[in-house]
Amino acid sequence: MFKASFITLCPEAFPGPLGVSILERARREGIWDYETVQLRDFGLGKHKNVDAPPAGGGAGMVLRPDVTAAALDSIDTAGKPLIYLSPRGEPFSQKLARELSIGPGMVMMCGRFEGLDERVIRARGLKEVSIGDFVLAGGEVAAMAMTEAVVRLLPGVAGNEASLDEESFETGLLEHDQYTLPREWEGHPTPEVLLSGDHKRIQEWRFNSAKSLTFERRPDLYAAYSKTNELQPPETGDEHD
Amino acid sequence: MFKASFITLCPEAFPGPLGVSILERARREGIWDYETVQLRDFGLGKHKNVDAPPAGGGAGMVLRPDVTAAALDSIDTAGKPLIYLSPRGEPFSQKLARELSIGPGMVMMCGRFEGLDERVIRARGLKEVSIGDFVLAGGEVAAMAMTEAVVRLLPGVAGNEASLDEESFETGLLEHDQYTLPREWEGHPTPEVLLSGDHKRIQEWRFNSAKSLTFERRPDLYAAYSKTNELQPPETGDEHD
Repeated sequence: MFKASFITLCPEAFPGPLGVSILERARREGIWDYETVQLRDFGLGKHKNVDAPPAGGGAGMVLRPDVTAAALDSIDTAGKPLIYLSPRGEPFSQKLARELSIGPGMVMMCGRFEGLDERVIRARGLKEVSIGDFVLAGGEVAAMAMTEAVVRLLPGVAGNEASLDEESFETGLLEHDQYTLPREWEGHPTPEVLLSGDHKRIQEWRFNSAKSLTFERRPDLYAAYSKTNELQPPETGDEHD
Repeated sequence: MFKASFITLCPEAFPGPLGVSILERARREGIWDYETVQLRDFGLGKHKNVDAPPAGGGAGMVLRPDVTAAALDSIDTAGKPLIYLSPRGEPFSQKLARELSIGPGMVMMCGRFEGLDERVIRARGLKEVSIGDFVLAGGEVAAMAMTEAVVRLLPGVAGNEASLDEESFETGLLEHDQYTLPREWEGHPTPEVLLSGDHKRIQEWRFNSAKSLTFERRPDLYAAYSKTNELQPPETGDEHD
C-alpha cells in the first residue's frame, strides 16, 4: 500500500481534495493511505514553539531544525523520499509523479512562514520540490496536488488505464481538443471528422490538434517534442474552425 | 471583498487547505470569501448527467458544453476572469497571481474526467490555466493552490507585508537559504556572517545565496534574471559551507 505522510501545522486541511472521487475510493479499497503528523507536537517548551526569527534579521519566522528533524525522525521513512515542498525546489512533473508512483510512498514536509532552516534540509537529505513558480501560504496544498498526481497513477485508481497514456505530458504534447454531445450547441457544431467514424482521420485530426495547441501555448514543450521526433512546425488553421 | 467561485462536482473537497491559518483568518475578517457551485445541479435528465463520451471515440468522458455553460451562466461573473484549470493552460505564475489579486475575484471551473468540451471554452472565453506539467484527478486542488497564492497577496492577509517582497519570484531569483535557532545544531553551525550584525555583509551573503541557488537549480530563471540585470554567473562555493 502506498503511504503518504504529511508533516504539517495544519492537519485540519486534510484530506480536502484527497478525500473525494477516485482518490477517496482508492483509499477505501486499500490502494493507498495517508497520515498527518502534527509538527506542533514536537515543539519546544510550554508554548510548543516550532519557529524562531531568521538568523541575520528580516521579516517572518523560520522553522527550527531541531523541531522539524524530530518530526521527520518520528516517521518510518524506509525507502521513501523525503520531500520538502518549496518554491525553490525542482519543478514537479509528470515524470517525477511516475517515478514516485512505483515507490512505497513519500514523506512530505509542509513548510509555513519563511520556510525551513537550511541545515535540516541538508542533514536529512530533503528533496526540495516545487509545484510551480508561485508562492503559497503553506506547503499543504502543494503536497496535496503532488499526492493526487502520484496516487492516480497507482494501478486500479483511474477507471480507465488507457486514458492515462493519451493525456497531456505522456506523449510530450498537450492533449488535443475534446468534443462531446450535443452535436450542435449554441450554433457550434462538433467538427465533422469526429463524427465520420473514420478512425485514421480522427487520429490524424487529434494529433494535429495536439501539435497546434502545444506549438501555440507551450513553445518550450513543442521544441523538446520536435527535437525528439524530428518534426517541423505544424500547419495551423483549419483544425480549429 | 475578493470572491472566489468554484464550479465543481466535489464541493466536499472545500475548504481543505483554504480553511486554515491565514486564509481562514482573512475569510473570517471579510477580506475574501468563496462559494462552491455544484455542477451536478445543472445536469440533464433523471440522472443529472454532466458528461458524455468523446466525439470520435476514445477513453473516458467529456463534460458537456450545455451543462457547464449553464453552471457558468448562473454565477455573477462581472469583472471576474473565468478560469478553467487544465494541464493544457498557461502556466500559473506569481505575476498572474499579482494581477488576479487586484481584481474583484475569479470564477474557476474544476474539470474532471477527460475535461471540457472545447466549444464552451471558446464560447464563454474561459482562460485555461495550469499549475504545472502534471496531471491531476480533478481541477479542485489546482484551483485551491491558485486561490491560496492570490488571496495571500490581498492587503491584510499575510502578517508581514515586507516579507512578500523578498520571497521567491518577486526578485526574479529563488529565495536565499534561511537559518534560525539554535546557533549550532547536530554539529552544524549557523553561518558566521548571519550572526555578525553587519547588515551590509548579510545582504551580500543573502544575495549570493539566492544567485547561486537559482543558477544551480533553475538555469531558466537565472538566464532571464541575468539578462535583465546584466549579471555574470555567480561565484560558487563558499557560501554553502
